[in-house]
Amino acid sequence: MTALFAGPLRAAGSGPDPDAGLLAGGAAGPAALRPLLGTVLEALERGAVERGGPLPCGGPEAVAARVRAAAGAVLPREGVGAAAALDSLVGVVAEGAADPAEPLCAAHLHCPPLAVAAAADVAASALNPSMDSWDQAPAASELEALVCRELARLVFPGAAGAEDRPEASGRPDAAGPDAAGPDAAGPDALVTTGGTEANQLGLLLARESARGVRVVCGANAHHSVHRSAWLLGMEPPLVVPTPQGVLDPAAVGVALAGLGGAPSLVVATAGTTDTGAVDPLGGIAGVARRFGARLHVDAAYGGPLLFSEGLRGRLAGLEHAASVTFDLHKLGWQPVAAGFLAVPDGRVLRPLEHCADYLNAGDDTEAGLPDLLGRSLRTTRRPDVLKVAVTLRALGRAGLAGLVERTCAAAAELAGLVADGERFELYARPEISTVVFRPAGGDDALVARVRRRLLERGQAVLGRASLGGRLWWKVTLLNPAVLPGDLAALLKLVEEAMEEGSGA
Amino acid sequence: MTALFAGPLRAAGSGPDPDAGLLAGGAAGPAALRPLLGTVLEALERGAVERGGPLPCGGPEAVAARVRAAAGAVLPREGVGAAAALDSLVGVVAEGAADPAEPLCAAHLHCPPLAVAAAADVAASALNPSMDSWDQAPAASELEALVCRELARLVFPGAAGAEDRPEASGRPDAAGPDAAGPDAAGPDALVTTGGTEANQLGLLLARESARGVRVVCGANAHHSVHRSAWLLGMEPPLVVPTPQGVLDPAAVGVALAGLGGAPSLVVATAGTTDTGAVDPLGGIAGVARRFGARLHVDAAYGGPLLFSEGLRGRLAGLEHAASVTFDLHKLGWQPVAAGFLAVPDGRVLRPLEHCADYLNAGDDTEAGLPDLLGRSLRTTRRPDVLKVAVTLRALGRAGLAGLVERTCAAAAELAGLVADGERFELYARPEISTVVFRPAGGDDALVARVRRRLLERGQAVLGRASLGGRLWWKVTLLNPAVLPGDLAALLKLVEEAMEEGSGA
Repeated sequence: MTALFAGPLRAAGSGPDPDAGLLAGGAAGPAALRPLLGTVLEALERGAVERGGPLPCGGPEAVAARVRAAAGAVLPREGVGAAAALDSLVGVVAEGAADPAEPLCAAHLHCPPLAVAAAADVAASALNPSMDSWDQAPAASELEALVCRELARLVFPGAAGAEDRPEASGRPDAAGPDAAGPDAAGPDALVTTGGTEANQLGLLLARESARGVRVVCGANAHHSVHRSAWLLGMEPPLVVPTPQGVLDPAAVGVALAGLGGAPSLVVATAGTTDTGAVDPLGGIAGVARRFGARLHVDAAYGGPLLFSEGLRGRLAGLEHAASVTFDLHKLGWQPVAAGFLAVPDGRVLRPLEHCADYLNAGDDTEAGLPDLLGRSLRTTRRPDVLKVAVTLRALGRAGLAGLVERTCAAAAELAGLVADGERFELYARPEISTVVFRPAGGDDALVARVRRRLLERGQAVLGRASLGGRLWWKVTLLNPAVLPGDLAALLKLVEEAMEEGSGA
Repeated sequence: MTALFAGPLRAAGSGPDPDAGLLAGGAAGPAALRPLLGTVLEALERGAVERGGPLPCGGPEAVAARVRAAAGAVLPREGVGAAAALDSLVGVVAEGAADPAEPLCAAHLHCPPLAVAAAADVAASALNPSMDSWDQAPAASELEALVCRELARLVFPGAAGAEDRPEASGRPDAAGPDAAGPDAAGPDALVTTGGTEANQLGLLLARESARGVRVVCGANAHHSVHRSAWLLGMEPPLVVPTPQGVLDPAAVGVALAGLGGAPSLVVATAGTTDTGAVDPLGGIAGVARRFGARLHVDAAYGGPLLFSEGLRGRLAGLEHAASVTFDLHKLGWQPVAAGFLAVPDGRVLRPLEHCADYLNAGDDTEAGLPDLLGRSLRTTRRPDVLKVAVTLRALGRAGLAGLVERTCAAAAELAGLVADGERFELYARPEISTVVFRPAGGDDALVARVRRRLLERGQAVLGRASLGGRLWWKVTLLNPAVLPGDLAALLKLVEEAMEEGSGA
């Protein structure tokens, strides 16, 4: 059998090193990365210029044809080399991007990443720590524990174990021992791939807490609540209508009463996908408590309002939840992924504990090697926490609050422009940064047509929402660098597209 | 309510742009990234020098203390700025890494990423495409479709729709229309966060194929098979003992006969985590067919042998599976994450189809906007495929085959050194790149102690495996740049640590 593998393992000292520049890690990795990163930056620059706007023009077929031309055989017999592959494929992906850094790319909860976060993420790629055992991520696993506990304390400031922190005591940069381990009391959080996985974990923890737990959510809840129940083999959620766009505590009470005392999980939303509305969390928490129901809050969108002293009051009641979905790849300007599930007491995460002898054998754990496998349902796991840690430290709470406030201010300004004119109907004043509107007197077909027209021409990326039986445009502002002139330009483009008639 | 958001949205033309350098995307993003990437590379270089080996010395507490000192308050009131935050946190994570680019870091399926892949990944972070709708990832979604189909054809070369490709017809770089859509017949694959999620999807597809599907797997199967069954609300897997380290087709037949015709999913492994053993796939496929059972193969480790003409025969029978876990963050040298689930016919993925009106409304899909939501259980999703596409094109099949062959050759060489000496007992000749051995005549306590000793001193990262009732060292070689001298040095360190006696 050995002969099968008699491959070209080379001996030391056999001439110039053919592996120079091969790997991203080690002492030689940065030197290998430097010229390749230069190629990537040039391709990104060229792609943005060639695109010349928020997205490529021509629609799906035109974009696909350019990608196919650049990709060639996808897996050729002989490679073209690193520089050529980076130049062509990064170039075509940049030219064909819907770039959220462009102010008129504003459809989805799809944020433009901060440069500092994207730069930090390179270190995750180069070092490749994997978060499933200490001996694959010694420093990154400690950093994750610190960041998770700090973000959980932001969500649950009054929970046992959340007080008496350096930050809370006014010593902003004091470093000190943090005795909390994974099993310690006090707020904690898990890193997830986003709001969807965090909601899934919230439902899973509820499923494990009692037999036959029924999920109760609003019609305004994210689709991942339904998909998670399906994935986890739970009954489909009981859906409470939300004619006002938010979950009514009284209606939740009626739904819970109808379950006759069966164990249940109420899912509320702090920042809906369609309108950015925040459910009345305090009232819902009270009803849930009265019926003995567990409460999960999906704050994937609204959670970062907590950074702002002026805005955090909008989330009053959040701290009563048993679990909270929190996400920094929306109003936190991180490259995907940067999701979290926060809980008021890390001990409630015990149902996720898991043993695999090669990763967390009992004698290793007893000897002091941290057991990390219970912190995710994934095994191998990228240290997404590094970019988050760097961002929190670079901007501080005040810097993040400023970005959140500017983004919300832009939405208020756009809503004002919509409401002041005669061409549009505004759905409601934005609660976070989503502006929903439609043509005054226009029909659904016009809304859909204008949106696709702007998309195919590469002029603007608008979203859509079905509300009250009608179709609306949705502008989700997540770009803190947007200017008032951008907002006026967006409305002008929409008006022009409306006037063109119904021809495709 | 508007007053609440009267934040500092600035007017255009109000002096120098305070947002210059803020965002990673747009035409100005590369210029913002350039100096920050310089800071990151310097911190990586410094960290590697300070570490001076495969991992930091001192064990968990010493590493944690250095991280806490660098992280400070984690979320300070005022930020320290991008450069300072990058310098301190990237530096401490690099200094405290278990770096798989160091040859003596060889415990786990934890690969050193290629520089070209890590560089490409920067573009994913900067542009932040999200793969859940076309209007968040116009070009990246087409690239994903191309790469997924090409990798699936590598796994299922004989499936309908897999032939008549430019590559197969000897035109290595010919670009041409690829008519296969997500619903088209022919091999296809989904991008996952790794082998664990791919196994989970394999079980989910089986669960949805019939009522009460029972999973049958070997004792050598990855722990994620069991965890996935729990997650999905399925019965715990029926475990077939594997005293020889691989699944015996006859034993699988006995297990299936015992189920009395109930629907079942057999899970086989091509490259076990403990020893890199490959189950006899052809024989298992035959037994599964005879009993009408579905077959999933976890080839997270062994799958890339398919790149090599000399080694792909080791996976004969793989093409009979209903689904295959394939992973390029092991023997594919990608930064995490780069997992795939491959299927012989894309239509079997239909149970994952899902509708969310804001992402894939019926009229948009009819108008030609691709519907991407059914390609993952995640919603927001990073374009992990970009780094994979760049790597495939840069190295080609021959380049990847060469790296796989060199890595396997290194394992054969290490096994030879172990077998030739008198101090060690070799578990078996490696089938892929895992070498399992123990001290001749030594006990389990010695194995555990030597491993932790080398770990705490920062000298080497060895893995562990419990096999045949005894504890073994496991060396998982995934570094294609390893030299024969590195292998000898590893064994010398182990011998020295063995001689030190039992004191901690």
